[in-house]
Formats: sequence, structure tokens, C-alpha cells
Amino acid sequence: MVEYSEASAEVRAVYDDIMSTRKTDSVNNFWKALGTQPELLRRTWEGIKHVMAAGALDPLTKELVYLAVSATNQCAYCMASHSAGARAKGMTEEMFGELMAVIGMANQTNALAAGFRVPLDEQFRP
Amino acid sequence: MVEYSEASAEVRAVYDDIMSTRKTDSVNNFWKALGTQPELLRRTWEGIKHVMAAGALDPLTKELVYLAVSATNQCAYCMASHSAGARAKGMTEEMFGELMAVIGMANQTNALAAGFRVPLDEQFRP
Amino acid sequence: MVEYSEASAEVRAVYDDIMSTRKTDSVNNFWKALGTQPELLRRTWEGIKHVMAAGALDPLTKELVYLAVSATNQCAYCMASHSAGARAKGMTEEMFGELMAVIGMANQTNALAAGFRVPLDEQFRP
Amino acid sequence: MVEYSEASAEVRAVYDDIMSTRKTDSVNNFWKALGTQPELLRRTWEGIKHVMAAGALDPLTKELVYLAVSATNQCAYCMASHSAGARAKGMTEEMFGELMAVIGMANQTNALAAGFRVPLDEQFRP
Amino acid sequence: MVEYSEASAEVRAVYDDIMSTRKTDSVNNFWKALGTQPELLRRTWEGIKHVMAAGALDPLTKELVYLAVSATNQCAYCMASHSAGARAKGMTEEMFGELMAVIGMANQTNALAAGFRVPLDEQFRP
Amino acid sequence: MVEYSEASAEVRAVYDDIMSTRKTDSVNNFWKALGTQPELLRRTWEGIKHVMAAGALDPLTKELVYLAVSATNQCAYCMASHSAGARAKGMTEEMFGELMAVIGMANQTNALAAGFRVPLDEQFRP
Repeated sequence: MVEYSEASAEVRAVYDDIMSTRKTDSVNNFWKALGTQPELLRRTWEGIKHVMAAGALDPLTKELVYLAVSATNQCAYCMASHSAGARAKGMTEEMFGELMAVIGMANQTNALAAGFRVPLDEQFRP
Repeated sequence: MVEYSEASAEVRAVYDDIMSTRKTDSVNNFWKALGTQPELLRRTWEGIKHVMAAGALDPLTKELVYLAVSATNQCAYCMASHSAGARAKGMTEEMFGELMAVIGMANQTNALAAGFRVPLDEQFRP
Repeated sequence: MVEYSEASAEVRAVYDDIMSTRKTDSVNNFWKALGTQPELLRRTWEGIKHVMAAGALDPLTKELVYLAVSATNQCAYCMASHSAGARAKGMTEEMFGELMAVIGMANQTNALAAGFRVPLDEQFRP
Repeated sequence: MVEYSEASAEVRAVYDDIMSTRKTDSVNNFWKALGTQPELLRRTWEGIKHVMAAGALDPLTKELVYLAVSATNQCAYCMASHSAGARAKGMTEEMFGELMAVIGMANQTNALAAGFRVPLDEQFRP
Repeated sequence: MVEYSEASAEVRAVYDDIMSTRKTDSVNNFWKALGTQPELLRRTWEGIKHVMAAGALDPLTKELVYLAVSATNQCAYCMASHSAGARAKGMTEEMFGELMAVIGMANQTNALAAGFRVPLDEQFRP
Repeated sequence: MVEYSEASAEVRAVYDDIMSTRKTDSVNNFWKALGTQPELLRRTWEGIKHVMAAGALDPLTKELVYLAVSATNQCAYCMASHSAGARAKGMTEEMFGELMAVIGMANQTNALAAGFRVPLDEQFRP
């Protein structure tokens, strides 16, 4: 992992943008790990910054979607960092509980759809 | 698949509840496939009905979460039926585009977190 | 795909062993597709033949396990071919329904364990 | 996580049912984590209790299926808790070895079926 | 899907760049589907174009890596389009066979590592 | 886990072959865990040894493919052991960075292909 103090100017610029965008004074290990690959770091940060910003969907909804992907993929790091992010953006305990219920149900019915080999309904055909 | 006309009373009761809850006059193939297993059908429907209803999260947000799980799992049937469901609940083209961007980004960074073997930050430890 | 009539002696020997082991007079498309890669075909068939044979677990139980993996992975081909295999080995409709219920539940709780970031209990530590 | 001593009556009732059903005097962390969400806890426990009980498939077979899903999903917590469960229900070392061999083989051939883009055989079409 | 003839100037510019980069006179359905979301289209194409170009890894190696991810995820579309891409860049039948063997083996041993709950070796600790 | 000193002759023979093939004087935990299942150990090692050897694809390329599968599956152990293996075979930091960029991009576009329900292009049909 590349700490701020040892980072190149290019990497430091990304770390600075992360901290100012997120209004914190440190960067997460995810970014420090990507710090070994300056270009991948920059591109990934720019992607995240752009994609997670407010738009037609609000930032909290986007965090919930992010958590849904991460729980499905069993990504422990991503669940940890983004559930903190979601709470910071207003996710309550009640919302978290309903989110988890939907994620669990979707993973269940996804497996059922595959297991029962459900054919596509006429009206859903492209 | 079990059609309404050939369904048992138990299965028919579930089909009726699906149609009245969703305000349609037909049930999707997913439910007809589960119709061969009356109890699994009933339990799954009751779970879905309960979990996807309005609560701390609104029904559209829940559909977006559902789509995030389904795209991650490569569940073609689920993407088809629930993107129709999400549109019926108000998902615009712009929202769909942002949803897909977040899902794509989350799958990308999930793989990066695993690939870089990012250690959990102190503040995220349980 | 390599049909029997056009197969090399090496590939034909595998096809013959598949048909005699399974007591059928044709081989599935899976094997015909692997027929383009004689060595991978042979090694995969030998692995399957060995692993799926009766042992401490009976062949039907092994097929159920195979289906659990295949539904979880959303492998449509594998669900199709192995649910036929499981039925041929005695899987009833009732067993299939219970199998699907367990698979669905396991996929649900797997996602919940990740989502809730459940720490390992003392007694489960290696 | 919600410990028994600090649990509400609703949560405590579920914990009690878990302990009496499983004939133990403690509940696993999985349930304590869900204890923050009383309704999700209750629904999930009722689902597990029902689905994993003896039926057309015996409880040990169901645990093996559960392990197959969990290993495929890389769910570390689930592998830990349910391999203990499976051993408690009679899974021998030999059975575990064969189970793992089938799970490994199924994950291998699932990837091959996707990689070779194997078309569905005529006889497997719905 | 958005065809070239009906595309906006922004989308058409991306399609043009795809065709000139790939030296073809048509764009794949993947891009036409993303054509409904001009910005996601542009960002995704720029990402792919940059990431798949020759660098420390040659373009063919990158296609093989891409196929490994796609077979693991059961992404039928991605296998189809990128195995064509890999062949166009020089993948022989023999290379494809070895690629599939490695992908199959990796999926097998990934499941075994999870199933056996293998603890990290001292020398692999971060 | 079965240590060398306590291993049976059959298991010891595999450990010996692993150490002589890999030119090291110890075996990884993965193999020690499989040491409880002598036959699965032997078969898995023989498979790995054969599949990862030089052929139409060189051993480093095969390790990169292996890492692609492992990052996609979120297999922490496999990432740890095989990224060490890949570095030992010549993977530079720059190659690792590009590998991760391709893996991330492939996981992103795999999800997009599912999410947009992209139909197969005429020319990719089997």
C-alpha cells in the first residue's frame, strides 16, 4: 500500500481529490492499495466519483445498489467500506434491514429461476 | 409449468393473490414453474410480497436493488421480469443508465478489492 | 462439436466409455463440444466418471449436490443435463422441490452472512 | 450483534426456538447479527427451520446441498457453521471428501459449459 | 438498441471510433445496447479501448484473461464476442483448449479452498 | 491439515512431487488441507501439475488466467498463493496492474451485458 507521505505527485493528486470530495482527512486502504498502480488508481477514482454522484438516482440509493452487488459477490472489504458510506449518507437500521431482506430474496429467487429453468414469458422477449 | 386452469385450489389461491396484488390478469412463468411445488410457491410468494412492499425503502428502490443482484448473478430471467417491474414502478431510462453504471462499477471494484487483497481499514473492523 | 462419425480414435474411445457407462447410445453436446480438445475431454470424463460414482455418498446425492452448484452458478446447460440425470437416478418431484428450497435458502443466507458481516464464532475457528 | 441478555422479547423467542430445536444452549453469531432486525430474524429462522427439516430429503443430505452452495459462493462463515452442522448430523471424513470432489468437479464443468458455449441438446429442451 | 442510422452525433462518434479501432464496418450489439445511454457508452468504450490495448501484457493475453472472467461469471454474450476477439488476435484451438483447462481447474480449486477452509500460509500474509 | 511428518506414504509421495516440481522444501496449506483426503489430493495435484505446465500457453499466462478466475470468485486464499506464483514466474508490477485493469473491466462489462440483456449478434450464433 502506498501512504500519502511516500506517494508520487500523480498519486497524491488523486488522494487529495478523494479527501476533498469525501470531506475526510484520510483515504481508505482500497485507494492505498491501488496507489501502486497510479493510472488504474486515477481511472478507478474518476469512475467512482462520477458514477456515485447525485443524478437521476440519489447518492444513498446508489450506495444501496453498491451494497447489493457486494453482498452478492461476498466482497467483505466492499461491504465494510460501503456500509459505512451508506450510513454516512443516511441509511438507517430499518433501511439496512429491508435492504438485506431484498438482497437475500433476490439471491434466493435468482437460484430458483435457474433451478426451475423458467422460460422467458412472451411479454419479456426482446 | 402449472397453468391456472389446471392448478389445485392451493396453487390457485396463490395465483389469485399474485394477480390481485399486482393488478394484472396473468401470472409470470416464474410462478407457474413454482406451481409444481405448492408449498415452495406459497412461501416464496409470501416472502416476495412482504419484502418488496413499501417500508423504510420505497418499492422502486427495492426493484433497483433486485436488479443489481440479478445482473451480478447473470440471471437472465430475473433481469427480464424485474426490469419490467422497475419500469412499471417509475424507473426512467436515465435512472436505468445510472443504475447500470453503479452495478458495473461495483462489480469492477469488488474484483479489484479481491485482486489487490486490500486489508480492512482499522475503522471498519467489527 | 465433434460427432461420433467424425471423431478420432482417441475421442471415440471416450464417447464409447461414456455411452457404456451411462447405458445410452448417444453422448450429450457437452462431450461433443469437448471433443475438439481430446485430452481435456478424456481428463474431464475420467474425473466425472470417478467422482460421480457410488462411494460414501450415493450417486443420487451427488447429482443433487451437482445441481446445487449449477443453480448457484446460473449454469443453464448444467441444470438441464443434470436434472435429467438426477431424475434418472430416482429424484422425485418432491425431492426436487425440497432441493430447490434448500438451494434458495442457502443462497439467501450466504448473502445475509456477507451483508451482516457476521464474525466467526469462537467454536468455528480453525 | 444482539446477545440474549439484551434481546427484546420477540428476538428472545426466536433465540429460544433456535436453541430448543437444535438442542444447544447458545445461538450462533449469524442469528445474533440478524437480531438487530427482529422481523428478518424471525422470517429467516422460520424458513431455515422448515426447509432443513426431514422430508423427502433427509437433514444430512440437505446440509450437503447447503455446503455445495456455500463453497461455490465462497461464503466462509456458512462453510464454517454448516460443516459443523453436517458433521453433527453424521457427515464422515470420507463423505466430506467425496462432497468436495463433486463440488469441485461441478464448478469446473460449469465453467467449461459456459466456456465452450455448449448448445442445449434436443432432449433437454423445455 | 440504437442503430448507427438513428444514433445521435455523440453516440455516432463512439461507434465510429469502435469501428476504426477494430477495423470493422459494424459495431456489436453490446455497444448498440449501451447506445441508449450515451455517456455510459462513451466511458465504457474508452475504458475497454484503453485497458485492452497492448502494454506490459499483449492484447491476446488480455483477451484470454477476459474469457477467464466471462466463463467464470457464466456470461454467454461475453464468451461469444470475446472468443471471436481472441481468435482474431491469434488464439489457436490448442491455446483455447489449454485456456479452458486452466479456467476449469481454477474454478475447481477455488471451490476446494473455500470448502476446506484453508488458512492462509504464513508467507502469504500481507 | 496433514503435516509431512504425520502423512501416510501415499500423501507423502504427493507432497514430495509438489516440492520437487516447484523446487521448494515445503508445501502450501492448500495441499496440507487436502492431505486429509489422499485421493482427492493426488487427483487435484496431478490435474494442476498437468494443466499449469508449459504448452501452447506459457506458465505465466496460465497464472494470470488463474488469478482472473480467483479475483472474480473472491477466493482470498487463491489470490494470495497464485499471485506469489505469478510473481515467481515473472509477473512484474506493471503486468499486475494491467491484469487487474482487465479483470475489473471484464467484471464490469459482464454485468452490463446481463443488465442490458444484450441479444447475441448474428455472427456469434453457433
